[in-house]
Amino acid sequence: MAAETDVMEKVVALTKRRGFVFPTAEIYGGMSGCYDYGPVGAELRRLIRDDWWRTMVTAREDVVGLESSILMPARVWEVSGHVAGFHDPLVDCKKCKGRFRADTLADARCPERPSKRPGECGGELTEPRQFNMMFKTVAGPVQEEGATVYLRPETAQGIFVNFKNVLESTRVRVPFGIAQIGKAFRNEIVVRQFVFRLRELEQMECEFFCVPGTEDAWFEHWKAYRLRWWTELGVRPSRLRLRPHDKEELAHYARGCVDVEYRFPFGWKEVEGIASRTDFDLKAHQTGSGKGLAYLDETTKQWVVPFVVEPSAGVDRCFLTVLVDAYEEETKANGETRVVLHLHPKLAPTQVGVYPLVKKDGMPERARAIHARLATVLRAAYDEQATVGKRYARMDEVGTPFGVTVDSQTLVDGTVTVRDRDTMAQERVHEDALLGHLAERIRTWKRADDGATA
Amino acid sequence: MAAETDVMEKVVALTKRRGFVFPTAEIYGGMSGCYDYGPVGAELRRLIRDDWWRTMVTAREDVVGLESSILMPARVWEVSGHVAGFHDPLVDCKKCKGRFRADTLADARCPERPSKRPGECGGELTEPRQFNMMFKTVAGPVQEEGATVYLRPETAQGIFVNFKNVLESTRVRVPFGIAQIGKAFRNEIVVRQFVFRLRELEQMECEFFCVPGTEDAWFEHWKAYRLRWWTELGVRPSRLRLRPHDKEELAHYARGCVDVEYRFPFGWKEVEGIASRTDFDLKAHQTGSGKGLAYLDETTKQWVVPFVVEPSAGVDRCFLTVLVDAYEEETKANGETRVVLHLHPKLAPTQVGVYPLVKKDGMPERARAIHARLATVLRAAYDEQATVGKRYARMDEVGTPFGVTVDSQTLVDGTVTVRDRDTMAQERVHEDALLGHLAERIRTWKRADDGATA
Repeated sequence: MAAETDVMEKVVALTKRRGFVFPTAEIYGGMSGCYDYGPVGAELRRLIRDDWWRTMVTAREDVVGLESSILMPARVWEVSGHVAGFHDPLVDCKKCKGRFRADTLADARCPERPSKRPGECGGELTEPRQFNMMFKTVAGPVQEEGATVYLRPETAQGIFVNFKNVLESTRVRVPFGIAQIGKAFRNEIVVRQFVFRLRELEQMECEFFCVPGTEDAWFEHWKAYRLRWWTELGVRPSRLRLRPHDKEELAHYARGCVDVEYRFPFGWKEVEGIASRTDFDLKAHQTGSGKGLAYLDETTKQWVVPFVVEPSAGVDRCFLTVLVDAYEEETKANGETRVVLHLHPKLAPTQVGVYPLVKKDGMPERARAIHARLATVLRAAYDEQATVGKRYARMDEVGTPFGVTVDSQTLVDGTVTVRDRDTMAQERVHEDALLGHLAERIRTWKRADDGATA
Repeated sequence: MAAETDVMEKVVALTKRRGFVFPTAEIYGGMSGCYDYGPVGAELRRLIRDDWWRTMVTAREDVVGLESSILMPARVWEVSGHVAGFHDPLVDCKKCKGRFRADTLADARCPERPSKRPGECGGELTEPRQFNMMFKTVAGPVQEEGATVYLRPETAQGIFVNFKNVLESTRVRVPFGIAQIGKAFRNEIVVRQFVFRLRELEQMECEFFCVPGTEDAWFEHWKAYRLRWWTELGVRPSRLRLRPHDKEELAHYARGCVDVEYRFPFGWKEVEGIASRTDFDLKAHQTGSGKGLAYLDETTKQWVVPFVVEPSAGVDRCFLTVLVDAYEEETKANGETRVVLHLHPKLAPTQVGVYPLVKKDGMPERARAIHARLATVLRAAYDEQATVGKRYARMDEVGTPFGVTVDSQTLVDGTVTVRDRDTMAQERVHEDALLGHLAERIRTWKRADDGATA
């Protein structure tokens, strides 16, 4: 097994080689903190988003969806506290003019490594200054007043400012949630660990509005509900944990916060936050906008500003978690190395590959017909390029759980071989039973190794 | 029938009332050129995107997906021609300081209407100046060099700069397409017609790369394929047309361009553009980046820069088209007015509503059980609030095609009433046959009125 420190490099290389992730505008040298997602990457992200939406919105009667703008007026972010407080402390080196995030430095000297020379710059650093992490731009003709807008650093505020609109236009009543998936932008000084910390990211957030006094029970509900989602994606439970925030980590208004953490090769890191946010946000917008953001409690006939519990996950971090967790490099019986992604079949960009053993004797036509039948229900791909061995290797690297091969025996008795990505075992199944066979194996799939020993 | 000029106002009011669309940050007075999408609006958009993706990517072996960044380095837009040429001509009034798009003015005098006074300002206007429509921002620490980035005004360039990456990491070979759905930003001076012209919009674009010399055949293919998509969304064919661009409208490099237009209450307007773009974009990036963007033609063994045909549609315009086309205000036999959205059932945010006639005698439990069974396959909602009449009215306004009501007869013989949104006809169906009955009606649904007379 590869050393943990190498795993990230190997995952990054695989994602580039197989079309999961490319550096943004790579032909122009890339762009710090941004990545593009290639064909299989875009498909995996789509499946992650759909699964989150199904679990959070479609399957629940108490959560509805929303899509708010990325561009939002400055006033929203003044009221939310982001203009005053969404900062990183920065220091500059007086010698080499390098700029660093103060809280990432081990000591008070410049850590810059001059290129091709050993040691560090070691120059004196300025006092930390606050650097706002929101991207700012200007909307409309330049002289227009009040035209400063920010790219949202989180989707949550778009939900809070629509709370009343949703309450008035739908049948939902407190307790209920509003969920949204969308891009957010943070002008991070230090971007690193591939797609873990980005300047352009995608969030999956839900603001759940509840009766004051019930927030602790809802907090417990959401902790369990969200952790289950991660395990049901096929992520190994031994590499997931809930980490409650210490008192010092909590925002002054927060009743509690817990991170869902995954054990990456670079340590335990947050992949989702679940926060009990009290009525802080709605009350701030109520004061800031002068609009009432309370609901009428039918029992007490009182107007009440609800409390909020917020599960907030990232598409990019989920994507990375799923890939890192699925990645395995193993030595086969014949001594060859194989790279395989043990993706949950529900997240596999392609669920089944269909191959003619050779491009003759009617095998391509037969395989085409089988592919067409499978493709009505599954994400299926037909491939007749290269040897079957190479096709299997390609399929392993993009996490395709099943490979179906049409060979000479198929022409005689109608059976095909079904190869299992995880075990490499092959069995013969009649083509008429194939769809049911695969559907059942997808439904009952379990990760063989829970990773406790890895 | 309402006058055409009123229809937009009514659609806008309906979308606000029922939670399709809200002004962005409305509690702070809204934001010009941006809208938020409420629960049913977000669902309709999701269904539009999924249908486009299914038709363009999943159902085609020759198109793959991509998700590129919104933030892109300035160099991309210099090379693409957007920094120099993505302009609107602006004029300022020397008297009232108003600013206008020169090409929208009828004469050379200021058209501003001073508030509460008749007439127009009539001040002298400056000569037109060019105003670039891209949103600009700065990434990274402020002193970092070359940190100017633009919010992409189209998703297309994100595809072109990834052409080589996709070719090298997947099995696709020319002819093939790369498709993507994502936000784009245009600092429009004049925003109008609700979500028709926005500053923040969402595109659904495909760049289809083909062998030079075959572009006209592919252009014909895409015109037919894309127009069919619009009609299969349930949009009335009598309100759709293909309008070829005149020679003067064509970009200098373009071989041809055709708009899919829809007849809105405010006239025939573009909802999709299909452009034959030659090798202009790839050749520009080849020169600009110094990287080869050709493919090796296996037959001739020559390196060739492919030609491109681009179908480009907008989620927001499609959303508006579908709503406007579905909207009907009709007078019922009893003289009451009813507002109904004749949405295609595949686009209906809720496909079936399930209602107990009254909240007693076990009807809610029975309706709940039926709802649970339907919800495994359809987008189903349970509703026991208010009278059945009010529930039907609500369902008509959000375009729910079927309503199932559990009444006292259900308790006797297991039949329920199925109400048809379009005809308001009701029939009794046994609950065991209900799912099959609804699935078949959804599959065979046709718009009764093709709108030729409207």
